Amino acid sequence: MNYQHIFTQAIERLHGEGRYRVFIDILRNKGAFPNARCFAHHNGPKPITVWCSNDYLAMGQHPSVIAAMEEALHDVGAGSGGTRNIGGNTHYHVDLEAELADLHGKEGALLFTSGYVSNEATLGTLGKILPGCIIFSDELNHASMIAGIRNSGCEKRVFRHNDLAHLRELLAAADPDAPKLIAFESVYSMDGDIAPIAAICDIADEYNALTYCDEVHAVGMYGPRGGGITERDEVAHRVTILEGTLGKAFGVMGGYIAADQVIIDVIRSYAPGFIFTTSLSPVLVAGVLAAVRHLKGSQIERDQQQAAAAFLKAEMAANGLPVMPSVTHIVPLMVGDPVKAKRISDILLAEYGIYVQPINFPTVPRGTERLRFTPGPSHSEEMMRELVVALVEIWDRLELEFREAA
Amino acid sequence: MNYQHIFTQAIERLHGEGRYRVFIDILRNKGAFPNARCFAHHNGPKPITVWCSNDYLAMGQHPSVIAAMEEALHDVGAGSGGTRNIGGNTHYHVDLEAELADLHGKEGALLFTSGYVSNEATLGTLGKILPGCIIFSDELNHASMIAGIRNSGCEKRVFRHNDLAHLRELLAAADPDAPKLIAFESVYSMDGDIAPIAAICDIADEYNALTYCDEVHAVGMYGPRGGGITERDEVAHRVTILEGTLGKAFGVMGGYIAADQVIIDVIRSYAPGFIFTTSLSPVLVAGVLAAVRHLKGSQIERDQQQAAAAFLKAEMAANGLPVMPSVTHIVPLMVGDPVKAKRISDILLAEYGIYVQPINFPTVPRGTERLRFTPGPSHSEEMMRELVVALVEIWDRLELEFREAA
Repeated sequence: MNYQHIFTQAIERLHGEGRYRVFIDILRNKGAFPNARCFAHHNGPKPITVWCSNDYLAMGQHPSVIAAMEEALHDVGAGSGGTRNIGGNTHYHVDLEAELADLHGKEGALLFTSGYVSNEATLGTLGKILPGCIIFSDELNHASMIAGIRNSGCEKRVFRHNDLAHLRELLAAADPDAPKLIAFESVYSMDGDIAPIAAICDIADEYNALTYCDEVHAVGMYGPRGGGITERDEVAHRVTILEGTLGKAFGVMGGYIAADQVIIDVIRSYAPGFIFTTSLSPVLVAGVLAAVRHLKGSQIERDQQQAAAAFLKAEMAANGLPVMPSVTHIVPLMVGDPVKAKRISDILLAEYGIYVQPINFPTVPRGTERLRFTPGPSHSEEMMRELVVALVEIWDRLELEFREAA
Repeated sequence: MNYQHIFTQAIERLHGEGRYRVFIDILRNKGAFPNARCFAHHNGPKPITVWCSNDYLAMGQHPSVIAAMEEALHDVGAGSGGTRNIGGNTHYHVDLEAELADLHGKEGALLFTSGYVSNEATLGTLGKILPGCIIFSDELNHASMIAGIRNSGCEKRVFRHNDLAHLRELLAAADPDAPKLIAFESVYSMDGDIAPIAAICDIADEYNALTYCDEVHAVGMYGPRGGGITERDEVAHRVTILEGTLGKAFGVMGGYIAADQVIIDVIRSYAPGFIFTTSLSPVLVAGVLAAVRHLKGSQIERDQQQAAAAFLKAEMAANGLPVMPSVTHIVPLMVGDPVKAKRISDILLAEYGIYVQPINFPTVPRGTERLRFTPGPSHSEEMMRELVVALVEIWDRLELEFREAA
């Protein structure tokens, strides 16, 4: 048994497929985001513009978020010092859970150290609490939901992406007496499309299924108070469990679920990924509290983000760049090849100071490799025009295919 | 299918066993830890002393940690804004990984959002990279290691706690050509005993097995630079993968592994729990950098912690309290019943302002419920004498059994 050989082979497979990942070493400039400093492959930090951040509304540099974190840092210190049950349940955690429950109109909420863990722990535990449960999962669900469903030990039936007829067909074929859960996302982050949530809830009612909706790419950004697509579409009360993140539009880190109190209590009491881990630092929780409260009352960040996304999509289309048909703030540009996607990204960074990460398998299916832009309130029209000029120049240089200009 | 009924039953089972958990709502007082404020069951915050924190060396309030976090907060903002691969790889992350690799004398290190995730993701992924791998697991391993081993899909063979003969017996009975991994902890946090690491490595060499050692309750606290028991015992180079936390002795939040570069690269490239999650906030990473650097050069916190633990154990033993035979900084007091353990804890909090959480199943085996004290540099001898007086009074009041005084 030559372990070294097996490990080396695993890495060589990635190089062979052109999808070995090199992390771009950066520091963002607070107050001047999307400006940042890049440390890789040159002497000293070089200024860049970040186009691929999930700090969608730039709340990570919002003065009220920074002030709240600084205050908590000086009031209670760096970390929580324990699990939620053993010394790590701070008043900030209690307050934020109440704030998030209110945001979604649910009885309760529960914090996790990340959105990944919230999906993995909740889905994994639900499946164990409901013996014989069948989980119906959208084929484009995030890796963390897939991990949770696998860990649950439940039977999984995958329905075609946003395909209501297929979902209904699978439900109709299942044992009517088995517990059932439909798991899906509201905004799919790599394509920028949106699930038909009301119609999914209708089908769930018909077959007495629970519903689980991942809103990580929607909370803060949709709905009049930032409650996500379920708030915008007025269907939050129909979804059994809503899941969100604190690390994207809310600008900090962490994840959560919101649901009926008894479900929150079950997950709180049975999920190892919740129980056996140091709770979120109170400094982070304080920052999120400020971000959630701000976005409940402020519409301008959401309006500016939608305007930026619309402008960038229009500029790309007008210049014949193959922008994908997103209906959200996400602007994906199709390349279709991992080596070319990385080459475009490398040129943008080295020659233009533009940072956008290529998106490869397994994040997206092979053959659909892309660049994914996330313009927000801090990306100016001038920055977007410069970006499109750079892309057109590279498209020409690499002899990539243009579409007919829109 | 009545979902509500199933969920309610799950909660009632916990009440029936006396192990329904109520989170104590607190705020620690930075600069005055272990003093804190408690919010539960009374009007306004009440002052308490915390005896069950895993902020073992009070680094969560260390001026250099606080200053580093404040500086990062103002330099780069609240969150990282993305996964390590997509916009979330900051220069702080790169620096901390180098610092941790150096701490353990390894080629590389890799950060995770928590110690739980580092165990779950690393063990889960290793098992998939090494087809047919058999994992030999100490029976008292932490829930996160158990989760990782289960997710790996590998065959698991459990050896009796710290029992070298049993470990050898299981290895001898296994297919000599199968990949093998021995997974264990250095300090077991609920009993306070230590694994015979050198002897485990001898056995691993004999049977060509990899070794995985969880040092979360040891890093920062043992070894001349805080490299853990493996540094103290000069065996770090013999352990294949070391795993640690940033949320206990280092006072902040997060987890990591340290190993050969090729192993780091494999986990970095294949572990969903690493790839698909927003990276640690740079504010946290900056704080940990300061904590690790401080504890590499400062012995006083470690000496004070060991002195405090020795004092408290001696005081308890001298007063006939059933302190368990820990050889570390952990001071467990056996109760043996979940209802009594909770009762003692409730009286301590309500009448004495002393906060120590009862430890119940599944954290410890049923029938071994206990109170677990973690005295550190900030717990004075006067505080410890007061604690023991309170415990003796409660032991008398509840007619619990004393041991012959030591």
